Amino acid sequence: MKSCGVVVEYNPFHNGHLYHLEKSKKHTEADCMIAIMSGNFLQRGEPAIIDKWHRTEAALKGGADLVLELPFLFAVQHSDYFSQGAVATLAAIGVESLCFGSENGKIEAFTKAYSHMKNNKEDYDVTVRKYLNEGYSFPEASRLGYEAVEFPTNTIDLSQPNNILGYSYVKQILTHAPQMEPLTIQRKNNHYHEDTISGSIASATSIRKELLKQRTLTSQATQSIPNDTAERLTAYKGKTSIWHDWEAYFDLLQYKILTMDESTLRCFHGVDEGLEYRMKRTMKESTSFNGFMNALKTKRYTWTRLQRTLAHILVGTDKEEVRQGLRENPVPYARVLGMTARGKEYLRAAKKQTDIPLITQPQQLEHPMLDLEERASAAYYSVLSPELRVERMKREYGAPVIL
Amino acid sequence: MKSCGVVVEYNPFHNGHLYHLEKSKKHTEADCMIAIMSGNFLQRGEPAIIDKWHRTEAALKGGADLVLELPFLFAVQHSDYFSQGAVATLAAIGVESLCFGSENGKIEAFTKAYSHMKNNKEDYDVTVRKYLNEGYSFPEASRLGYEAVEFPTNTIDLSQPNNILGYSYVKQILTHAPQMEPLTIQRKNNHYHEDTISGSIASATSIRKELLKQRTLTSQATQSIPNDTAERLTAYKGKTSIWHDWEAYFDLLQYKILTMDESTLRCFHGVDEGLEYRMKRTMKESTSFNGFMNALKTKRYTWTRLQRTLAHILVGTDKEEVRQGLRENPVPYARVLGMTARGKEYLRAAKKQTDIPLITQPQQLEHPMLDLEERASAAYYSVLSPELRVERMKREYGAPVIL
Repeated sequence: MKSCGVVVEYNPFHNGHLYHLEKSKKHTEADCMIAIMSGNFLQRGEPAIIDKWHRTEAALKGGADLVLELPFLFAVQHSDYFSQGAVATLAAIGVESLCFGSENGKIEAFTKAYSHMKNNKEDYDVTVRKYLNEGYSFPEASRLGYEAVEFPTNTIDLSQPNNILGYSYVKQILTHAPQMEPLTIQRKNNHYHEDTISGSIASATSIRKELLKQRTLTSQATQSIPNDTAERLTAYKGKTSIWHDWEAYFDLLQYKILTMDESTLRCFHGVDEGLEYRMKRTMKESTSFNGFMNALKTKRYTWTRLQRTLAHILVGTDKEEVRQGLRENPVPYARVLGMTARGKEYLRAAKKQTDIPLITQPQQLEHPMLDLEERASAAYYSVLSPELRVERMKREYGAPVIL
Repeated sequence: MKSCGVVVEYNPFHNGHLYHLEKSKKHTEADCMIAIMSGNFLQRGEPAIIDKWHRTEAALKGGADLVLELPFLFAVQHSDYFSQGAVATLAAIGVESLCFGSENGKIEAFTKAYSHMKNNKEDYDVTVRKYLNEGYSFPEASRLGYEAVEFPTNTIDLSQPNNILGYSYVKQILTHAPQMEPLTIQRKNNHYHEDTISGSIASATSIRKELLKQRTLTSQATQSIPNDTAERLTAYKGKTSIWHDWEAYFDLLQYKILTMDESTLRCFHGVDEGLEYRMKRTMKESTSFNGFMNALKTKRYTWTRLQRTLAHILVGTDKEEVRQGLRENPVPYARVLGMTARGKEYLRAAKKQTDIPLITQPQQLEHPMLDLEERASAAYYSVLSPELRVERMKREYGAPVIL
């Protein structure tokens, strides 16, 4: 069975995702589309607007045959680790190609850039280190590094988050999974960070913004998502009364930061260079997540980096468990969140060939990364009523979504 | 100036406390009544119904001249450490006597019991250890220990919490502060644990129960407390909309326990003997504090012991800081929460003679125990709105109450 992988967050699944899935399937002539998706927390360090189960349902309805969970440890990381986890998982279960969206839709731009960077790695590293030492943020130091080695920016603009991710996928594939084919198709209409919805294809950012601001499915939001997504958004809110955003977690975060001493705070992934002192000081005066972030951020600590760090504080990810987790090669398991009949068939065949355990429920395997996943979900559902929390946490141990 | 100390929680200050203060003052002919009071968390591991500032005001109105804070580290402990902190603080600022309430009102019963126990210490210790090893709770093992050494239970009944505390004060005084005179006066009418209010003297337990159940100042509650306490209870609730009880903290507690792995949970004071596993397991299924406690408690883990441990988890007290804190001899500072003109005068004189810093605001001294105090208050106020939390935490750094 021919397979094609996609790396996704589906927060929420929208028409652009639908388009990408359809185009990728056609382009690769795949029989089985395999999505590796972030769970309840996302790459930019945000809680997902609805939980992974409802997002999985929408993905299956939208054309994915198999949805795997990108473990929290890889999901809430900068693009390198994020891609490492995603590519390694897809490779481990024998997925033949990976197809991502990009502005120009030409894979050569990415593979050439990779070769160029490989040949200039040392110069790039030296430059990045230099600017980091001078207090630049990582994205900024990285941009200056690319500039220094004359990265072909006319073909890939690395100031675009989607291009950075695409480039990371290609790098991971060519370095660690050369049997997999990297492919890209041109994105339609929107930009990742675009703030407002225009037309039927809009960015996930703009859709979330609309939903969280209006607190209801407006016609503007509805026009940019499939019906199945609208149903899932409505169903989730019907059950829990909320769509998740950081503000809902502010009380927990403030409580946690203010009841830990600095040395404990320093144990969490991402709390470095004295950030613990700045965090405690700032938190004492803050009355909202947005206010806290605005007071906390600096040139060096970008919004995304801080959000990711705060997600790790909220969940309680300590440095040591990240160090150990990232040492796993390639990945310790693949967890299925949902599948169609075709996905099930693919999985059955993959099971015979893969070296890693394929699990459909976390209790099938003992692994620290699954303990962390459980804590991430416990944190995610902490903003619900006690009864709903217990119920949603039971779901965490239930069977995958079957379509 | 003649001084008399009392060890109190005033949760809330009621007619029995008023009676005790008046009687103690008369009995000792003291010019200055000095109360050492638990802060925002209490000996039995509960959040105080209203904060320490409002309780301090009620205490000054009720006849105390000086209110000192018993540090959290000593306050939320079993009777031995609780008494150690209280007696050492009073002794350090030169208080001449300590007067506590007891059932029979005869100090000889306590001093004789102390001599008896001193002579039979080894037998007592061996017996207690034996029963603890067999899985008995500490109070039960201790009772069996007293029985084994033929403790004069006809004069002091150590199944009464107030007698246990009284006995601990006497033990601390005779062992560490022999210059201080231990005194007792007979309690009036009620028992510490009595559940319902009857008449104008009722137990703090019954008053809290009435207030927390009815969520308003009923006439029954009002008859058992001075007007000044009623005013403070009303004022606090007017500002914050709540009277504190454990249920209000259940969300935070559940969030914290479910997002920590067992090895982190084990670092908190009181989490021993595998309790971390039982706690996590039980918490997963719980939807209220009361339900959680009922499912958690066993013969060995009594309600009070568990509550204390949970207070330490909520606040984040780790074992190492308790170990270091209890090593301090006698105590690292005395912090003033409030005073009358007379109390101020006493303090001025005491300052010249004492070896420890007397502080009126926590920022006057750098000490780990004050950091812990700050975290305890941050945890206590975590159930308020963000704006109120910030405001109440500023109060924490303000001047003492002056009457």
